[in-house]
Formats: sequence, C-alpha cells, structure tokens
Amino acid sequence: MARTQGSHSDITGPRIRKAALKLFAQHGYAAVSMRQIAGEVGVQAGALYNYTPDKQSLLFGLMHAHMDELLSARAALPPVDGPLEELKQFVGFHIRFHLERPDEVFIAYMELRNLTPENFAMIEALRRTYEDDLEGILREGVAQGVFAVPDTKIATLAVIAMLNGVNTWYRSGGRLSLDEVETIYWDMVRKAVAR
Amino acid sequence: MARTQGSHSDITGPRIRKAALKLFAQHGYAAVSMRQIAGEVGVQAGALYNYTPDKQSLLFGLMHAHMDELLSARAALPPVDGPLEELKQFVGFHIRFHLERPDEVFIAYMELRNLTPENFAMIEALRRTYEDDLEGILREGVAQGVFAVPDTKIATLAVIAMLNGVNTWYRSGGRLSLDEVETIYWDMVRKAVAR
Repeated sequence: MARTQGSHSDITGPRIRKAALKLFAQHGYAAVSMRQIAGEVGVQAGALYNYTPDKQSLLFGLMHAHMDELLSARAALPPVDGPLEELKQFVGFHIRFHLERPDEVFIAYMELRNLTPENFAMIEALRRTYEDDLEGILREGVAQGVFAVPDTKIATLAVIAMLNGVNTWYRSGGRLSLDEVETIYWDMVRKAVAR
Repeated sequence: MARTQGSHSDITGPRIRKAALKLFAQHGYAAVSMRQIAGEVGVQAGALYNYTPDKQSLLFGLMHAHMDELLSARAALPPVDGPLEELKQFVGFHIRFHLERPDEVFIAYMELRNLTPENFAMIEALRRTYEDDLEGILREGVAQGVFAVPDTKIATLAVIAMLNGVNTWYRSGGRLSLDEVETIYWDMVRKAVAR
C-alpha cells in the first residue's frame, strides 16, 4: 500500500492506534467514525487509509495486539515450582497486567460483538490459549491433590472473572495498595480452588 | 406532557423501552439515534418525545428499572437461617436473575460511562445497596466465625464479579444445566470466604 508520508509512517501508525483505542473506549466502536479518529490524530481522513484499510482492521489490530502482549508477557514470567506457586504467580500477573491497560481490557470485552466472525474466531482462539494455560495449572493441581474443583474449565472462567473485576473498582492512591489487592485476591482464589 | 396517541400510551412506552434496550445492547448507546429507536418501534421519531424527553432518560430509565427489579426480587426471597445459607441463597439468586436479563446486564455495566453525573450517582447508589446486602452477609459470617475474609468490601466485589462472569459464557442447552452451574459456583464461593 502506498504511503504518502513515508518518513512519518513509523510514528503515524502508533498514533492512529492510540487515538482509535481512546475513542473506542470512550464512545464505543460503532459510534466512532474514521473521520473522528483522523481528527484526533490531526491528519486528513483520507490519510488514515494509508495505514489501515478500515475501522474493523483498527479494532481487530488493537484486540489482537492486546492478546499478543498478554501471551508474551505471561510466557516471559520466570518458572515457579508447583501448581500452588504457579497459580499465585498467575493471579498477581493477571491483576497487574490488566490494571495497566484499562482501555484495552474494556474494549477486549465490550467490542467482541463488533468483530467480523473471522476476526472474532481469531481473538477467541488467543483468549482460549490464555485460559487453557490457567486451566492447565488447575488440572495439574487437582491431579496432585493440591486443588479440588468440580470443573476445571468453569473454575478457570470464575477465577478470571473475579480478577477482571479489579479493573472496575481499583484506583491507584485509593484505600488499598496494589500489593494488598494482590494479597486479598490470592487469599480468595487459593481458598476457592483448595481441597 | 401531551400524548398524541392517548390510548396507545400504555403499550407504546414498554415497546419503546424494549426497542431501546435491544438497540443499545447491540450497537452501544452512543451509536443509536432516537430515529433508529422510533424505526424499531414503528412510529415517527417525533412521537417518541411523547413518551421520553430524550435518549439519556431512556438509558437511565432502563438502568434504574433493572436495579429496582433486582432489589425487589432480592427483597422478596424467603428468609433463611444464618450467613452460610444466606450466602448460598444470594449466589443462586444472583446467577439466575442475571442470566435471564443478558441485555440489561450488559448495558448496566457498559453504559455507565454514558450516564450524566447525576444519573450515574443514582444508579451507583442502588448498586451499592445491593452490594451492601451481600457485604452484610459476609460481615455477619465473619462475626460468627463462619467466614474469614481479609476485607469484606473486596470480597463482596470479588464474589459479584465471579458470578457476573456466568453471563459471558453460559448458554442454556449447553454442557451444564443451570443447577450444575449454581452448584459449582456455590462450591467456589463458599470455599473462597471460608475460614
């Protein structure tokens, strides 16, 4: 695809994604036009099409990048020993990773309805990879007699939903530090899946 | 306010709310126009204003009605004995009430950003009433030595977030019956707050 502003392309692409993220999170995907995104970046609407074919690609790109980052960051964690330590690490990681990205998380859940079926399937597959990772920890813990859950798949979804809830209420500088939040949630998750 | 279709007012009001609920859930509040809502109902856009002053009032009305129903249904539950039974009843009630109202739940969480500050404060107060109810059960259980949670407020939010997650994956006719789902979540909630 031709680029009219060759030397600017490296910085314009990220600026467009940042503007789209902000506007989608504020108003919702369906309410935001390519013209608005261009206005936020400070370029002509036509210039946007040098960087992205359409609004759907922007949404998919944001959600895909978010899941890629999540999986990479998770894979980069140091190995720990045994399902209990692995679960503890997962809880801390999940809370901190998501708290740092409130807009991405909001969009990741809310705009699934606006993905094309093909794009939805790709995002869902990435999300399932992440869930399978946690379910593997729970399965291993059950096999070792460390955990007891009636259904590892449901327990996986329950733990993730519980942890995602932090994003809806936590404000830095509030009553609880991030360490305290992590400790409280770890206490509840640990007990929820305990024998 | 004058009503141009006097005899129809009793049925047109609910039809407008139903259409708004459907469209807001599908496309998001900001992307839906009064004209679209009128089109869905099959009336002229101007006729809508006989029933509602504006789109904000429609959104607030939907969210307010949802919270009213939640609090009424909760208040109508038969009394049970002791915090453990009360928590069990809360878990079953919460799951079933919310699964029956997927669009209302989606809007209740997603469109908070689109309420005016005054309307937001009113919805938040109703939600806090519901949360305080659960927190009261947890506090009483802690006082009686039945439960042990480091922070009853956070435990309240964690339990509600975990239960809300059911709405994102449960499909009737799927692998698990509603009774099984209730049993699995009760097992995890009970353990999460146990001594």
